[in-house]
Amino acid sequence: MRMSTVSRAVLLSRLAELGSTLPAPETTIYDYVPIKVHDRIAYLAGQIPKLDGSLVAVGRAGREVSLEQAVAASRVCVEQALAWIDAKAGGIENVEQVLRMDCYVAADDDFTQISDIADAASGLLIGLYGEAGRHPRSVIGVAQLPRRVPVLLELTVALANEPDAASA
Amino acid sequence: MRMSTVSRAVLLSRLAELGSTLPAPETTIYDYVPIKVHDRIAYLAGQIPKLDGSLVAVGRAGREVSLEQAVAASRVCVEQALAWIDAKAGGIENVEQVLRMDCYVAADDDFTQISDIADAASGLLIGLYGEAGRHPRSVIGVAQLPRRVPVLLELTVALANEPDAASA
Amino acid sequence: MRMSTVSRAVLLSRLAELGSTLPAPETTIYDYVPIKVHDRIAYLAGQIPKLDGSLVAVGRAGREVSLEQAVAASRVCVEQALAWIDAKAGGIENVEQVLRMDCYVAADDDFTQISDIADAASGLLIGLYGEAGRHPRSVIGVAQLPRRVPVLLELTVALANEPDAASA
Repeated sequence: MRMSTVSRAVLLSRLAELGSTLPAPETTIYDYVPIKVHDRIAYLAGQIPKLDGSLVAVGRAGREVSLEQAVAASRVCVEQALAWIDAKAGGIENVEQVLRMDCYVAADDDFTQISDIADAASGLLIGLYGEAGRHPRSVIGVAQLPRRVPVLLELTVALANEPDAASA
Repeated sequence: MRMSTVSRAVLLSRLAELGSTLPAPETTIYDYVPIKVHDRIAYLAGQIPKLDGSLVAVGRAGREVSLEQAVAASRVCVEQALAWIDAKAGGIENVEQVLRMDCYVAADDDFTQISDIADAASGLLIGLYGEAGRHPRSVIGVAQLPRRVPVLLELTVALANEPDAASA
Repeated sequence: MRMSTVSRAVLLSRLAELGSTLPAPETTIYDYVPIKVHDRIAYLAGQIPKLDGSLVAVGRAGREVSLEQAVAASRVCVEQALAWIDAKAGGIENVEQVLRMDCYVAADDDFTQISDIADAASGLLIGLYGEAGRHPRSVIGVAQLPRRVPVLLELTVALANEPDAASA
């Protein structure tokens, strides 16, 4: 069993310093699961900006959703991913490193700050996990996303321990 | 060698009950391969709804392609993925679990059921493999897809055995 | 330690024959890293067509960017990926096989050759690595890409050796 380098208490404290929290994970009415683990890699479903049962932003980045609102939504996507890692992958302290982020943004054609929306998500992960939280990523401007959210985030994460061992 | 829990005969019978089949895998004129296996993970190319050499749907979901047609196309994408797993990854009985689905849908702006199109694909995998077939997924509405198909499905699948061992 | 089958000298010579080079890797102003390695798999950030500090193409494939220009841009994306593998993943000779390519193309609605743009990238990898360079791929036509480039390429690559061992 590998040791995680940062304790849960420290991570929760960092999250608070970053103006963030570990919310309850949001379920979906659709036919998929939020996370699956195989060989110490967690594959996460595309997270949408949902909190306490409601979407925090609806519409395209640009006229309908401001940069500030999209940035906040992007952070909520990360918080949801963390919530699922916490519930199903051995806790947020079981993250060894973030392997990849795919950030899909639905934006107006003349909205040119899709990378800034992704940066809000990346920055939160880096603030939380340091170098281990840095990740390769792709940012893609798309036509539409489920339930008309402005941002959807797909993460792939390496775990320190297999979840069963970690929760044992 | 790990044991697969469900035999090929049972899987083929389940496919039939689900109104589906295992078709011939369709090749492409483009410069890529349909599947690659590494460390018991099968990486599949984005599958398009092709059957017996023809596309089963062309155009965007909405005015050109109805929800029903797009749902049928989505299932054909899954069948193609299964056909390639069967041909190149040790058989459909060698699937240990489905790790991720990325479902890209080309739809009209006012077509809001892209998740239902993905659900048809997810449901087929769950009907076939049960809990092992459940997967995290992302659904993305995009501008266009190769050959103007309405749906393209990318799957990542964990295998029970390395294909060579499984086919030996 | 596994042996790579093709030497660096041969690969550089093949690149030259293919009309290509190994450029300096381009950095980004945004908050992400270009590549991360875990368990002998290199996860690369979405590469954009940047060379010597400048974008080689800006705009959508179609009216703004011709097929020829987009094809050239697509090759530059591959060269950037190779440059990062060379710098951070044990050298271009450490590639065991290419596991997946996701090729995102921003194109006009009536531009129907997005797969040809991807083929330019795939062909370069196959020319360089032979069968090991063949890969499953998805080609997706999207609304926009960072900095308005016409093509963004995401690669996942299996390595022959862990980078530290390989560079030792």
